[in-house]
Amino acid sequence: MIYFDNAATTRPERAVAELAAHYLDEQFYNPSALYAEGYNLHRELEEARRELVSFVSDPDEFAIVMTSCGTEADNQAIFCGGRRGNIVTTMGEHAAVYAAAQEAGRRGTEARFAPLNPDGSADADALLELVDDKTSLVSVIHVNNETGAINDINAIAERVKAKNPRALFHSDGVQAFGKLPFRLGRNIDMYSVSAHKIGGLKGTGALIKRKKLVLQPYIWGGGQEGGLRSGTENVLGIAAFRAAARTRYLGGGIEKNYSVVRNVQSRLWELLDKQLFERISPEYGSPYILTVAARGVRGETILHMCDDRGLIIGTGSACSSNAAKKYSRVMQACGLGRELIDGVLRLSFNIHNTADEAERAAEILNDVVRTDRELTK
Amino acid sequence: MIYFDNAATTRPERAVAELAAHYLDEQFYNPSALYAEGYNLHRELEEARRELVSFVSDPDEFAIVMTSCGTEADNQAIFCGGRRGNIVTTMGEHAAVYAAAQEAGRRGTEARFAPLNPDGSADADALLELVDDKTSLVSVIHVNNETGAINDINAIAERVKAKNPRALFHSDGVQAFGKLPFRLGRNIDMYSVSAHKIGGLKGTGALIKRKKLVLQPYIWGGGQEGGLRSGTENVLGIAAFRAAARTRYLGGGIEKNYSVVRNVQSRLWELLDKQLFERISPEYGSPYILTVAARGVRGETILHMCDDRGLIIGTGSACSSNAAKKYSRVMQACGLGRELIDGVLRLSFNIHNTADEAERAAEILNDVVRTDRELTK
Repeated sequence: MIYFDNAATTRPERAVAELAAHYLDEQFYNPSALYAEGYNLHRELEEARRELVSFVSDPDEFAIVMTSCGTEADNQAIFCGGRRGNIVTTMGEHAAVYAAAQEAGRRGTEARFAPLNPDGSADADALLELVDDKTSLVSVIHVNNETGAINDINAIAERVKAKNPRALFHSDGVQAFGKLPFRLGRNIDMYSVSAHKIGGLKGTGALIKRKKLVLQPYIWGGGQEGGLRSGTENVLGIAAFRAAARTRYLGGGIEKNYSVVRNVQSRLWELLDKQLFERISPEYGSPYILTVAARGVRGETILHMCDDRGLIIGTGSACSSNAAKKYSRVMQACGLGRELIDGVLRLSFNIHNTADEAERAAEILNDVVRTDRELTK
Repeated sequence: MIYFDNAATTRPERAVAELAAHYLDEQFYNPSALYAEGYNLHRELEEARRELVSFVSDPDEFAIVMTSCGTEADNQAIFCGGRRGNIVTTMGEHAAVYAAAQEAGRRGTEARFAPLNPDGSADADALLELVDDKTSLVSVIHVNNETGAINDINAIAERVKAKNPRALFHSDGVQAFGKLPFRLGRNIDMYSVSAHKIGGLKGTGALIKRKKLVLQPYIWGGGQEGGLRSGTENVLGIAAFRAAARTRYLGGGIEKNYSVVRNVQSRLWELLDKQLFERISPEYGSPYILTVAARGVRGETILHMCDDRGLIIGTGSACSSNAAKKYSRVMQACGLGRELIDGVLRLSFNIHNTADEAERAAEILNDVVRTDRELTK
């Protein structure tokens, strides 16, 4: 079985699975409790938070609010960061930002959406035009989850702040954290990340935020996470996130993994039949995603045929469970025509994938699309 | 080690720990994905949701929205259920309802708090007086998490609906689900539950809601949970919740467990020195909680001395991580005087606790309080 849907979710790292027994059977205590067993967990979580922040920024400048997922982190950024005037974001956002911005619009904060370039990256000039002195928040996805296009968020944030220094800058980094060699620049205020996209567990995400930024909680209650996110801390989820992130970052891993995965992506694209497949992903986007469109076939059909042959792939964003049957908003915003939009396939990789898997996958994909086109002629 | 802080969190059931390997190593797929592996998980989660609902109500009448914790479920009920006029709740709520209602108040929906009886139950007559034709939501905790007092929520809901049929009725059932033999009556619209209080995992809760009730999501995005809670489904967390709830409910377990735990609670109270301890918990409250006040000592000191002797207990609500050093709001609302409020201890039980543990715990508690009083004379 070849699993090429790692942008949707990843198999948890073995180190994570090993933690489960420890935190379920022995260290199951409430980290907010006053007794030693609880306090020890509290300190362990503090260390985990600091290490997670350190992978992309200076833990003296940035704090981290552990959340239940990337979606919740995005919602906190949008709803708590963009409370006045207008929110400027893009047509290329994950639904967690896009739908939240739309809802913020219904609640009275105007939502403005910048157009995309054909590869799925944001049209930065058009975005800047939407920013004015009433803008309270700008949110730009770091790596587009449907195409892998990279937005230069440090540069965009700098331009945003030059135009309106009071606007907050947020980025959804779910497809970038643990994957791209990158540090948060001085103009970024908030950054959302997720554990299960990099070998952690579903049910854990985080909002990395500038320490000086005063932010309201989105989930109110007992005051955990420094008052910014209530609810008993998910100890196993947080420890697993740390362990997973370590497999991505430690020992120069981030660059090493990047080139391993780039090799998988390149090999796969090299072997795909260019008569059958058109590349949507940009050449210099994230190596972790290769989105292609198969001409004249339905992506969903191809997906099932591949599944039968032992290759798991995605179509569009698997996070949009409800919208699965409609055309992807992002693909439409990329300007993809009707003849291609039906056949979009997202192939996404993990650090454990190999060039050999890429070769076998290319063979299956070429064969399946050829067969389907023969059948439907 | 005797663990008597089960109202804060419980050790996950062995059945849950066994699930971890399965869902982490084999069934790690995204349940919203279109391929067979994802769809199979989707169906499994549907079954889990239906079974969880069935334990307290008719799954044809009630649906369940899986959330990241009881706190999030409470927040969704308060913020999405109480959007107009006023919200009526009590001084005895968990912070997840209390702080959310206060915040709703700041956002323009008036928040009204009914007083408590000395045992921590809500003063139902006073609550009813606060309900008027502008009330959009009433929220009453099922089992008070600091005293174990049970509110007859079916009866209160009936009186609320008689006064204002359009008001929604919500209850925080976190300390009742899996513990009290109980069915949701026809006047209850929403009910919050949590997995880690009954042997499931931290990071999973749910809002059980009447199917006909149109509710807005609180977390917006890809449209998971029937559009009511976005974010990739926490498959392990949900499967673990189901497995844990089964250990509580199946085979007549709920009544059996209830009497086992009642025996632990009774034995413990019987053996505590009545010269040293005053009982706060009502006689006919939840057997899962025994709250006492030790006269003339500090609860936190007693907690640490017990911990050194191998007995883990709580003081007030361990969920209120930030408020740990202040007097408990609930204890103050119970009318507890200064001479007792400092010495409040919460002893809370799991179905696996034994009368033998109760006996040893009573011995430790009597001894520790006596020693402390000697020392501070």
